[in-house]
Amino acid sequence: MLTVYGYSPSGNCHKLRMLLGHLNREHRWIETDSAHGATRTPEYLAKNPNGRVPMIELDDGRIMVESNAILCWFAEGTQFFAGDAWQRAQALSWMFFEQYSHEPYIAVARFICGWAPIDSPRRADLPKLRERGDQALAVMEKHLAANAWFSGADYGITDIALFAYTHCAGDGGFDLAKYMAVSAWLDRVRAVPGFVPMPPIAAENAALIAQSRI
Amino acid sequence: MLTVYGYSPSGNCHKLRMLLGHLNREHRWIETDSAHGATRTPEYLAKNPNGRVPMIELDDGRIMVESNAILCWFAEGTQFFAGDAWQRAQALSWMFFEQYSHEPYIAVARFICGWAPIDSPRRADLPKLRERGDQALAVMEKHLAANAWFSGADYGITDIALFAYTHCAGDGGFDLAKYMAVSAWLDRVRAVPGFVPMPPIAAENAALIAQSRI
Repeated sequence: MLTVYGYSPSGNCHKLRMLLGHLNREHRWIETDSAHGATRTPEYLAKNPNGRVPMIELDDGRIMVESNAILCWFAEGTQFFAGDAWQRAQALSWMFFEQYSHEPYIAVARFICGWAPIDSPRRADLPKLRERGDQALAVMEKHLAANAWFSGADYGITDIALFAYTHCAGDGGFDLAKYMAVSAWLDRVRAVPGFVPMPPIAAENAALIAQSRI
Repeated sequence: MLTVYGYSPSGNCHKLRMLLGHLNREHRWIETDSAHGATRTPEYLAKNPNGRVPMIELDDGRIMVESNAILCWFAEGTQFFAGDAWQRAQALSWMFFEQYSHEPYIAVARFICGWAPIDSPRRADLPKLRERGDQALAVMEKHLAANAWFSGADYGITDIALFAYTHCAGDGGFDLAKYMAVSAWLDRVRAVPGFVPMPPIAAENAALIAQSRI
């Protein structure tokens, strides 16, 4: 059976849970708390020298890492990674945008707000992260003014990749209400059959996020 | 004819020049100095709201951005993006590694050394960037202990993607001699027929890099 090593509050890990839900694919989820060192053990690093989640393992021991690459593999041959070579490359283009211009600001701002101590010096990074994250949201807003989805003609893996950290951007101090097209797209994603919501985060993280708003 | 908007000293742009060389594909290169605002003009932003190079434009006006996605599109159906779905997803996995865990440290350290003023406050970031970049090089070294290439059984677009900023990591203060397998792989890439070297950087950038070494 497919094994997924994932940390449930991580958007990168949640991407896999969303797609596996749509595909109705049986799997074993091994909760791997990357915020508390679970990806830095010798056993984990032997499987993934880059020490990140998510990671998948097949029964024959084969390993794959990098959330968006795993999405591509799961979705190969399905409606979630469809189109001709140009359309699939455009879907990949948005996935690289997500990892380079979106996640490093929007996900990192959320991580600092909810997982770093309230007196962490990393909190000084928040204004810059929010400025860059707002730039990414503006690029998405512009695309959505003329397109329903990021994956092509229909919903697919690029929408999943971008939904993962956009839907919880408020945790990092972003005001999604400013982005009407993004907000409407988030609702469209939530309405797709088989949609799996992110599990609630732990009370301690929710409390830190609440304190970060003050 | 295919149009490429690129800044020649940029590794992300050089990736396209390398692959177009292998494919012997005719194209028009429009030098676009992203270090001096050429990607922030209204005309450029109308084509790429994210304001980055490289960007390609087809004769019918279609646009694609994100270097690694463009590589996938150029290479579709060729030996440079070969293998089954698993192997191609593994190649993508390393391309996401390149954009998330490698480029933000190794390319940014080089940019600060060669393009930021010698008294720039950004130079304070260099020790942290070098620590993270060394982690990425160590992950590559480990892969290369058991594999000749990153793209699969043979040289391909993932090797191009990783070569782009690894070969000039010394500009950012990295010591590639510490990574013997990486150094041997760089030599293998340079020996591939049709290899196109990066053009020399401008004297002012070379001078800043030399000063950064002191």
